[in-house]
Amino acid sequence: MTSTRSSCGTFTLPGEYYTSKDIHERERKRIFGLRWQYAGHVGSLPKPGDYFLAEVNGESLIIVRGQDEKIRAFYNVCRHRGTRLCSEATGAFGKHIVCPYHAWAYDLKGNLAAAPIMSEVEGFDPESYPLHPVSVGFWEGLIFVNLSEQAELFEEAIAPVLGKFSEWNLESLVSVHQTRYEVKANWKLMVQNYSECYHCPSLHPQLNKLTPFRDSINDLEAGAILGGPMKLSSGSQSMTMDGRTCAAPFGHLEGDDLNLVHYYVFFPSMFLSLMPDYVLIHRALPRSPNLTTIICDWFFSPEAIAQPDFDPSSAVDFWDMTNRQDWHICEQSQLGIESRAYQPGPYANLESMLAALDREYLAAMDQVMP
Amino acid sequence: MTSTRSSCGTFTLPGEYYTSKDIHERERKRIFGLRWQYAGHVGSLPKPGDYFLAEVNGESLIIVRGQDEKIRAFYNVCRHRGTRLCSEATGAFGKHIVCPYHAWAYDLKGNLAAAPIMSEVEGFDPESYPLHPVSVGFWEGLIFVNLSEQAELFEEAIAPVLGKFSEWNLESLVSVHQTRYEVKANWKLMVQNYSECYHCPSLHPQLNKLTPFRDSINDLEAGAILGGPMKLSSGSQSMTMDGRTCAAPFGHLEGDDLNLVHYYVFFPSMFLSLMPDYVLIHRALPRSPNLTTIICDWFFSPEAIAQPDFDPSSAVDFWDMTNRQDWHICEQSQLGIESRAYQPGPYANLESMLAALDREYLAAMDQVMP
Amino acid sequence: MTSTRSSCGTFTLPGEYYTSKDIHERERKRIFGLRWQYAGHVGSLPKPGDYFLAEVNGESLIIVRGQDEKIRAFYNVCRHRGTRLCSEATGAFGKHIVCPYHAWAYDLKGNLAAAPIMSEVEGFDPESYPLHPVSVGFWEGLIFVNLSEQAELFEEAIAPVLGKFSEWNLESLVSVHQTRYEVKANWKLMVQNYSECYHCPSLHPQLNKLTPFRDSINDLEAGAILGGPMKLSSGSQSMTMDGRTCAAPFGHLEGDDLNLVHYYVFFPSMFLSLMPDYVLIHRALPRSPNLTTIICDWFFSPEAIAQPDFDPSSAVDFWDMTNRQDWHICEQSQLGIESRAYQPGPYANLESMLAALDREYLAAMDQVMP
Repeated sequence: MTSTRSSCGTFTLPGEYYTSKDIHERERKRIFGLRWQYAGHVGSLPKPGDYFLAEVNGESLIIVRGQDEKIRAFYNVCRHRGTRLCSEATGAFGKHIVCPYHAWAYDLKGNLAAAPIMSEVEGFDPESYPLHPVSVGFWEGLIFVNLSEQAELFEEAIAPVLGKFSEWNLESLVSVHQTRYEVKANWKLMVQNYSECYHCPSLHPQLNKLTPFRDSINDLEAGAILGGPMKLSSGSQSMTMDGRTCAAPFGHLEGDDLNLVHYYVFFPSMFLSLMPDYVLIHRALPRSPNLTTIICDWFFSPEAIAQPDFDPSSAVDFWDMTNRQDWHICEQSQLGIESRAYQPGPYANLESMLAALDREYLAAMDQVMP
Repeated sequence: MTSTRSSCGTFTLPGEYYTSKDIHERERKRIFGLRWQYAGHVGSLPKPGDYFLAEVNGESLIIVRGQDEKIRAFYNVCRHRGTRLCSEATGAFGKHIVCPYHAWAYDLKGNLAAAPIMSEVEGFDPESYPLHPVSVGFWEGLIFVNLSEQAELFEEAIAPVLGKFSEWNLESLVSVHQTRYEVKANWKLMVQNYSECYHCPSLHPQLNKLTPFRDSINDLEAGAILGGPMKLSSGSQSMTMDGRTCAAPFGHLEGDDLNLVHYYVFFPSMFLSLMPDYVLIHRALPRSPNLTTIICDWFFSPEAIAQPDFDPSSAVDFWDMTNRQDWHICEQSQLGIESRAYQPGPYANLESMLAALDREYLAAMDQVMP
Repeated sequence: MTSTRSSCGTFTLPGEYYTSKDIHERERKRIFGLRWQYAGHVGSLPKPGDYFLAEVNGESLIIVRGQDEKIRAFYNVCRHRGTRLCSEATGAFGKHIVCPYHAWAYDLKGNLAAAPIMSEVEGFDPESYPLHPVSVGFWEGLIFVNLSEQAELFEEAIAPVLGKFSEWNLESLVSVHQTRYEVKANWKLMVQNYSECYHCPSLHPQLNKLTPFRDSINDLEAGAILGGPMKLSSGSQSMTMDGRTCAAPFGHLEGDDLNLVHYYVFFPSMFLSLMPDYVLIHRALPRSPNLTTIICDWFFSPEAIAQPDFDPSSAVDFWDMTNRQDWHICEQSQLGIESRAYQPGPYANLESMLAALDREYLAAMDQVMP
C-alpha cells in the first residue's frame, strides 16, 4: 500500500489567501455561508427539549429536539429586539424557548407562542414572527447544518460517504472528551496539515511509528470529501500513546479495517478520523484570516464506556499531543506566509490532496487557480 | 396611572446601526461632536484650581475652576507638541497648568503664561497659543460641555427641564459612590434599555416589585430629553434592596413625589434617575460599535451624608445589581443583532419611548427612518 | 559650548502622521522597506553556525555566520510551504537550517541542500529554491540589513560616521543587558524625544544634573544620521545613577571625549549613545501608528566585563529610569496628538534637530512639508 499520487506540478496558494480580510469575508459568504457543516451529534439530544448551541460561520444556532422528537436548528435571535435567546452551551428547554429580555416564548418548532402585551399593538400577528430556521441534515448520527436558503441537497453533499463507514455505527457513539484550541493560523492551514503525512517523520515521531507516512492511499481524491486509510505498523493496534487499543475494536469491524485508520476531510471544516476502537472529529471555526478555533471530540461506543476499567486517556493524550504539534507548525506557517518574501512553493506528490483541496476551495470561491 | 402609549407600528433599527464602523464614526461627528453632554458636578470643584478630567467623544477635557471662581473646560492638549497636560483624573492646580514635557505653563483661563526659552524663537507670540476652549453650560449644578464651535444654545437644549426638578436641589448633592462598567454592546442599546420597563418583569424581579412595570407615564415624549415617573408600590419607599429609603427624603419633596421615581434620558448619553432620597446619574461613553463604558454615580444630600448612621449601600447595591442585569441583556442583544438573521422587530406600546429615541437619533444623524 | 541653533519657524507635523494607518503603511514601504537598519552586533555570532533572529519592518530575519565565516541574512521563510524555519531567538545551526515541518534543509549560504522525496516530483529543481537573501552591511561591528532589492549602497549610507567613533572600538564591545519596552506611541515620537534636551529640565532632573540641557551641540545636522555631543557637568564622569563611571573609560578616549557623551539618531530606527565607559543602542520597531517596540542594549568592553568587581547596574538603572520617563511622556504626547484639538505647534530653537528629522522623513516619504 504505497501512494502513486502526483502533485502534477501544483503550487501552494498565494499569500493573500491566508492574510486578506476581503478573502476571509468572501470565504464566509461563498463557503461557510453555503456549505453543509457538522454541528454536533444526535447523541447529545436524547430527550425532547434537549438542546445545544452550535457556532457556524460566526452564527450562534440552537439545535433542539422537539416534542415530536424531530431535531431542528434555529438562529439564536429573538424576533422582537434581536436578543440571543439562550447563552448556556447545552441544556433542556421546557415546552418553550423563552427570551430572557421580554419573555417572548417560542415553541420547539420555532413558532411564537406568547408575546406579553403585544396583543395591545394593533395589527401584530404572532405568526409573522417565528424563529428563523436553519436547514438540517443527518448522516450516521452526525448533525449537519446549512445557513443558505438555497442549500445544496444534503443527500448530494453526503453521497460520497453513504454507507462507507457503517461498521463504526457512528450514530451510537458518545463523545467522552472535548478540547477546544485557539490557533493563530488561517483555517486552511489546518485543513492542509490534516491532509498530508509528508510532515509526519519530522513533526510526529510518535505517530509516524504507529502509521509510517508512506503507507497511505486516498480513496476519495476529488470533491468536498477527501481522504483515505493509513496502515498501522506491525504490532500497532490504534493511535494511542502506547499503540494499543484503549477499548475493544468496534464490533462490526473485520479484516483490513482492524489494521487501518481512516482520515477524511469534509470540506470545509470537519475532519473525521476513524480508528479501530474510537473516532475523532475535529471542527475548524475561522475567526479571522489568522485565527481559528478548533474543537476536537473523542467518541467511543457505549459498550466500551460501560466497561468498569474504561480509560480513554491514552487516545486523548495521543491526539492532544499530535494536535499541539500540528497547531504549532500551522502557526509558524502562518507567520512565514505573512512575510513579503513568501511565494507559492511546489507540492510534493504526497501533498496531492492539498492540490485537490485548493481546487475545491477555488471553485467554491468562484476563482481559478492563479 | 397606566400608560396609554402606542408604538404606532414602529420597528427597531436595522442591524447596521449597531455594528457599522462608518455609522459609529458618523455618530461621533453628528451626535457626540455636536450635542451637549454631562461632564460632572460642580460639587467636585469647590476651590479655585480644583479640576477633574472628563472624557467626551473620546476627547480628554480638563474641567477647572479658575481663580475668578468660574468653571471652564479645555482640551487636554499642549499647544507646543500636543502632549496631554494632565493625566491624574482629579486634583488641584496651582495658578498654572504646567505641561510635564517642556514646562509650557497656562493660567486657569487657558492663556499661555510661560514657555521656557521660546522667547529665543523669532516671531513667537504667546498669545497665539492659548489652550483650546470647550463650551460649558450649567443646570442645577450639573456641568455640560459641547465640543462644537457652533453649539446649540445650552439654554435651548436644557429648556424642557428648566425648574422641573428644583425640589431635589441637585446642585447641593454629593456623589458618594461611582462605578465604571465596560459593556460589550452598542451605546444605543443601553439608552433603549433604560427607556422601557417592558423588560422589568422578566429581567428585574426585585425592581418590578418596587415599581410595577405598567405604573409609569411619560411626561416628556419627544425631543432630546425623554422620560417620566413611575409609581412606587404600596409599602415601597425607594429603589433599594429592601425597598426602604436609606436617607431622609429630600426636604422639599411633597405629595406624589414621595411615591414616585423619575427617569429621564438626556440624549445622547446621560440618564437621570431621581428617587425620593437619592439621585443616580449614568453616563454612556461609546468606544466602538460594540463597546461602551458606563459611569454611574450615586448622589445624596449633604444632610443625609452628615448623619452618623448614613449608609448608602442599599441604594448602591440595588442599582449595581440592576445595572448588571441590564448590561448582560444588552450584551446578549448586541450578539443577536450581529447575526445575519436579525431583522427589525416590532416595538410594544410600552416601548413608545424607544421609537421616540430612534426618531431623535435619526434626525440627529440626518437620516429618515429606514 | 552653547547651541546657536534655530528652528527657523518650523512646526510639528500634522496629527495624521501619528495616527493614520495609510501613512503607517507608506512608512513601511518607503522607509522601513528601503533604509538600512541596525539588526545586531557581530559579537553575537562568534562561531560558524551561530545565528540570531532579527525583526525588521515586521519581517523575521535569520542572521547567521556561515562555514566560510561570512555573516548573511535570510528571510525566515521556507521555500516549500512558507513555514518559519526557526523560532528560537538565538542559537547555533549545524551545517544546515532544517525546516521543522517537512525537513527541507538549507546550507548556511541559503542553498536548498535536501528536500525529502521531492526528487519524485517531475521537473523539481532544488536550485530554484534557495532562501530569499537580505542585503547586509557592516560598520564597526554593527550589522545593518536592507530589505530592498535596490538598496542604497551601504557605504554611502554610513559615510557620515566613517571613522568617527573609532576610539570606542565598537566592534569589540559586548551587550551585557537588554531590555524590551512596548510603548503606546508612534515611533517618530521616540525619535524626536531622543533628539532634543529641551525636555530634560522638566522630565529628567537626574540626567539634567549630569548633562545640563543647553551644553550641547549638533555636529551632524542634516541627512539620515543626526546628532552631536553633550558636555558632562563638572564632577560628573558618565551617565549613571551616581554620575560616576561604572567601568574604566575606553582605552583610546582622550581629551574632551572623556567629558562628553555623544548622541546620534541613525534614521529611521537606531539611536547610538556613546558614554566614556559604555555604549547604548536603542532600536525602534513600529507595530502600528500608536504602538512601538523599543529594544535597548548596554555594551561594555571585554576588559571591563572581565574585572572581578564589574557591575553595570548603575548604567542600566540610569537609562532604564530615563527610558521610562521618556516613554511615558511619548505616550502622553500620542494621546494628545490623537485629539481633534491638536494642531502643529512651534519648535523651540533647541528642537532644530526635530525639524531636520521631519525634513528627512518627509523626503523619504516623497512628500514636502505641509
